[in-house]
Amino acid sequence: MRPCILITNDDGLTAKGIKELKDAMLPLGDVIVVGPDGPRSGMSSAITVSIPTRLHKVHEEEGLKIYRCSGTPVDCVKLALNVLFKDRKPDLLVTGINHGTNSSISVVYSGTMGATIEGCINKVLSIGYSLCNHHADADFSHVIPFVKKIAEKVLEKGLPYGVCLNVNMPENPPKGIKICRQANGLWTEEFVRHEDPNGHPYFWLTGNFTNREPEASDTDEWALTNDYIAVVPTKIDMTAYEVIDELTSWNL
Amino acid sequence: MRPCILITNDDGLTAKGIKELKDAMLPLGDVIVVGPDGPRSGMSSAITVSIPTRLHKVHEEEGLKIYRCSGTPVDCVKLALNVLFKDRKPDLLVTGINHGTNSSISVVYSGTMGATIEGCINKVLSIGYSLCNHHADADFSHVIPFVKKIAEKVLEKGLPYGVCLNVNMPENPPKGIKICRQANGLWTEEFVRHEDPNGHPYFWLTGNFTNREPEASDTDEWALTNDYIAVVPTKIDMTAYEVIDELTSWNL
Repeated sequence: MRPCILITNDDGLTAKGIKELKDAMLPLGDVIVVGPDGPRSGMSSAITVSIPTRLHKVHEEEGLKIYRCSGTPVDCVKLALNVLFKDRKPDLLVTGINHGTNSSISVVYSGTMGATIEGCINKVLSIGYSLCNHHADADFSHVIPFVKKIAEKVLEKGLPYGVCLNVNMPENPPKGIKICRQANGLWTEEFVRHEDPNGHPYFWLTGNFTNREPEASDTDEWALTNDYIAVVPTKIDMTAYEVIDELTSWNL
Repeated sequence: MRPCILITNDDGLTAKGIKELKDAMLPLGDVIVVGPDGPRSGMSSAITVSIPTRLHKVHEEEGLKIYRCSGTPVDCVKLALNVLFKDRKPDLLVTGINHGTNSSISVVYSGTMGATIEGCINKVLSIGYSLCNHHADADFSHVIPFVKKIAEKVLEKGLPYGVCLNVNMPENPPKGIKICRQANGLWTEEFVRHEDPNGHPYFWLTGNFTNREPEASDTDEWALTNDYIAVVPTKIDMTAYEVIDELTSWNL
C-alpha cells in the first residue's frame, strides 16, 4: 500500500513552500494537504478554543486532496487526524517548507514546528522543513532532493515515540546533512514603538537573533552558517530530568 | 533591594487566578502585572507578528503596577522585558494561577506555560502555576501558601539556565509537593461537528485527556490524581539527545 502523507504549514495554503513540499511528496505516496487559509507564522502550538474552525476541500485528483482550514497549524493537524483520517492514520506528516528558519529557540515559536510536534504527540512520524530564506518567491530547488531523502529514510527507519525532526536548510546549495542539537540562542531588541494619530503608543515585534554559542560546532546554527542542512531530533517530553534530584533535595 | 516580580497569565487580566497570584506575591516584592486584555487560553508560545501590540497602564500604587496588553501571553512577557524592564530584569516571573491544569502534554498548548518558557529563555527565574479547576470563581485559598513557598524557594535557590517550573495544583487540599516528570498523555476525540444555516460544517475543538501511563507514580498526572502538587522542571532545549547517535548512523 502506498504511504499516505499529510502536509501542512504555517505560511498558508498559497505559499510557495507548501506547493514545493506537495510536489516533492507526490512520488512517495498519496498526499492530503490541510493548510491554513492565510499566514499563521509564530503561532507555535496554539489551538483555537473560543471560536469554531472551518475545513473546506478545495482540490481533489487521483492521489491528492487539498483542504483549507481557518485555524492554526495545530488545528490543521488535529482536524485532519480526527475528521479526515478516522479509519487510517497518515504514515507521515511533513510540514513547511517554511519560508524562514526555525532553528535554535525559534522551534518554540514556530507554527510549522507546532504542527510537527502535534503529529508526534499523535504517534505519526513527523518532519518539519524550513529554508533560510524569507522571500515569498524563494528558490527551493537545491533542497528538494534532501527533503525527499529525509522523508524516505524516516518512512523506512521510523522514529522513536515522542521524537520528531526539525530540518532547517541553508539558502546556498547544501554541503550535506548534519545531525545536531538545538543551539542556545534567543531573540533580542524586539519592539519598535510607534504612535497612532491620537498619540497612543503601539509596538511592532521585531528583533535580532543571537546565537549564545557561535563557536559550538554541534548545533543547528553552526550547520546552517556553514551551509549544511541541520536535522535536530526534537522531543515532546520537556522534563528537565537532570534537575529532579536537586529540586527534590529542596524538601518543598 | 526588594525583588521585582513580573506576573502574567493566559486567562486575561480580569481572571480571579491572576488577582490571587498578585496578592500572594505582594508580600515578597514589588509587583508588575502585564496581563492580556482578554482570554488567551491555548495560545502556547504564539507571538503577534502581523499586527502591532498595545500596552496600557491601568493601575499604579506603591509596589504595584498593572498593565493590560492586547497580545498573547508571550507578547506580554516580551513587552514587559523590553519596554518596562529596560534597566533591570525582573528577579522572578510567575504566571497564572491558571484556571485549569497544564500538566502532561498540556504544557505544549498552554499560554501560561508559553509565557513561563519565554521568561526562562530570557534568563529570568520563571514559574507557571495552574489549578485543577476551570471555574471562573475557583477557590484558590488552599494552594496560596504553597504558591508562596515555591516562589520563595526559587528566589533563594535559583534554577539552572534553561529550566523553569510547571506547577500544577489539585482542587482538593494538597497532601504535599512532588517533584515529577511530564506524564505521557494526549487529547483525543477532539471535534464536535455542527452545521451553519447554509448547511456548511464547522468544528468545535473538544476532547478528553488520556494518560498513557496511569500506573507510573513519578508523573505529574499521578501526583494530581493523588492530591499532591506536581512540580515539573521544564526545559527549553527540546533536543532528543538520546536519538542523535541513531540518526547519525543513518548516514543521511
